[in-house]
Amino acid sequence: MTGGTIDKVHDVRNEGLGFAPDGSTHIPEMLRIGRCHFPLVELLMLKDSLYFDDADRDAIAAAVRDAPERAVVVTHGTGTMGDTARFLQGKAPDKTVVLTGAMRPFSLYASDGEFNLGGAVVAAQLLSPGVWGVMNGRVFAADKLNKNTAQGRFDV
Amino acid sequence: MTGGTIDKVHDVRNEGLGFAPDGSTHIPEMLRIGRCHFPLVELLMLKDSLYFDDADRDAIAAAVRDAPERAVVVTHGTGTMGDTARFLQGKAPDKTVVLTGAMRPFSLYASDGEFNLGGAVVAAQLLSPGVWGVMNGRVFAADKLNKNTAQGRFDV
Amino acid sequence: MTGGTIDKVHDVRNEGLGFAPDGSTHIPEMLRIGRCHFPLVELLMLKDSLYFDDADRDAIAAAVRDAPERAVVVTHGTGTMGDTARFLQGKAPDKTVVLTGAMRPFSLYASDGEFNLGGAVVAAQLLSPGVWGVMNGRVFAADKLNKNTAQGRFDV
Amino acid sequence: MTGGTIDKVHDVRNEGLGFAPDGSTHIPEMLRIGRCHFPLVELLMLKDSLYFDDADRDAIAAAVRDAPERAVVVTHGTGTMGDTARFLQGKAPDKTVVLTGAMRPFSLYASDGEFNLGGAVVAAQLLSPGVWGVMNGRVFAADKLNKNTAQGRFDV
Repeated sequence: MTGGTIDKVHDVRNEGLGFAPDGSTHIPEMLRIGRCHFPLVELLMLKDSLYFDDADRDAIAAAVRDAPERAVVVTHGTGTMGDTARFLQGKAPDKTVVLTGAMRPFSLYASDGEFNLGGAVVAAQLLSPGVWGVMNGRVFAADKLNKNTAQGRFDV
Repeated sequence: MTGGTIDKVHDVRNEGLGFAPDGSTHIPEMLRIGRCHFPLVELLMLKDSLYFDDADRDAIAAAVRDAPERAVVVTHGTGTMGDTARFLQGKAPDKTVVLTGAMRPFSLYASDGEFNLGGAVVAAQLLSPGVWGVMNGRVFAADKLNKNTAQGRFDV
Repeated sequence: MTGGTIDKVHDVRNEGLGFAPDGSTHIPEMLRIGRCHFPLVELLMLKDSLYFDDADRDAIAAAVRDAPERAVVVTHGTGTMGDTARFLQGKAPDKTVVLTGAMRPFSLYASDGEFNLGGAVVAAQLLSPGVWGVMNGRVFAADKLNKNTAQGRFDV
Repeated sequence: MTGGTIDKVHDVRNEGLGFAPDGSTHIPEMLRIGRCHFPLVELLMLKDSLYFDDADRDAIAAAVRDAPERAVVVTHGTGTMGDTARFLQGKAPDKTVVLTGAMRPFSLYASDGEFNLGGAVVAAQLLSPGVWGVMNGRVFAADKLNKNTAQGRFDV
């Protein structure tokens, strides 16, 4: 988990969206709702991906490389998900890496987060080694992973 | 769509769960929440799969066979999902058929339905022709698709 | 808190509605969501009010009488809410007692529970001593408190 | 209805909160969830109350004065709810006017909106003519209606 919209919450004081003050993530609760008990979860950072720099992406690459699992799902902000996917290419060539996230926070009812996370967990078990994105029912190779801001989704 | 728990609603009069009196399904809304716009949807029936007989399963087989798409997701009750999967084997050999559903209705907050549907839509694009089940983050071949009633999920 | 639909949860094993196996109530969470921090809460029982007998109603009367507060909200099943209201009349004549509940469980999205509880907490502060019901935006004297099963609400 | 946080929605493009592009309000849906069918609803404006000026408040006063009902609930932003309450004092002396709103939008799960609206609808039927606020389980006279920003609620 690296943060992104999927993990944002409403801040009652400034009417904006941010991360939980206690630094917590919603992904374990999302997996519990999905009755999906087997993924090991690791919180790497809670950041808006628009503010990611190469140090952040190096940290993600290291975490993926060091994971004992052969398949890894990275929850990530939608703003630069494609950039990170392309950055990760070749960094852990024996691993299947699937990036996912949400256009609407999980903490706000009617988020696409559960749908996307369910797709990413399944795709990580089915796809060949490489870097992929799974969003809104589509599977994208890293170099085709781009947010469609006009439509409010990831799309071909 | 064939019904099942994923499509059940709370009935205020008898405090039980049933299908919407107007015969509607939640799957289009679930896809909209998942921001997944491309699947064509077809409502075949709204039934509890515990009451499925061979005529119901023949209707599902015919719908799968007649669909112009090469990949089909069948939403289905959890009670006999495995039976239908095994019934469908060999009935449309060139198609990838993925059964899914939910342990908790979508209309009740915190359902596993979005997670499962997101997984099924992605799996249908990645799996070889055959009959599969996708539930709770797992992909099952038809002959391994069994509800774990004690745990309240589908599991290996 | 005495139970009733407002506190029921979905049971994944039998597809029915019942109380949480750990005997917990949702009312404290509902007050927290309503950002209403001052009511003292006491869980008396978790029962479907259709199964209430005079011993149950005696226990409610005693709890109301013994409460140090001058105003008490009783969460209660809708099935016999009116019966309990009439039973309580005269049992604690110096207290304002307001019964409330829900037609749809709080644990199921889109419940009337928050709306009713918010009304009951306010009514308890404004009404004269006596026994009242607050449901679906209406205030009822005990002898007028009756569920409208056909409409799925409490109504004049 | 005048807008305010209770009616805001998440905007997927800029990750902020605003009003629905189609100019719609959630109050009718909130009343339907509360199974409260009798209030007549009128959408006056959809504005953040921080941007209200005297022309906006004159419009609210006129709408209250012109309403045929003797009791009116005004949904309103929390930022200047107290200012509007004091502005309205004496403008419709025969009416019971109750302001309410939410700290968290209704469209975001776990909002205080239903709890507050349920309280306001009941209070409007019980309070004497005058201008009041009902928020978070409390009833405030106009001159005591103030947001507690530090606690994220209205409080004594």
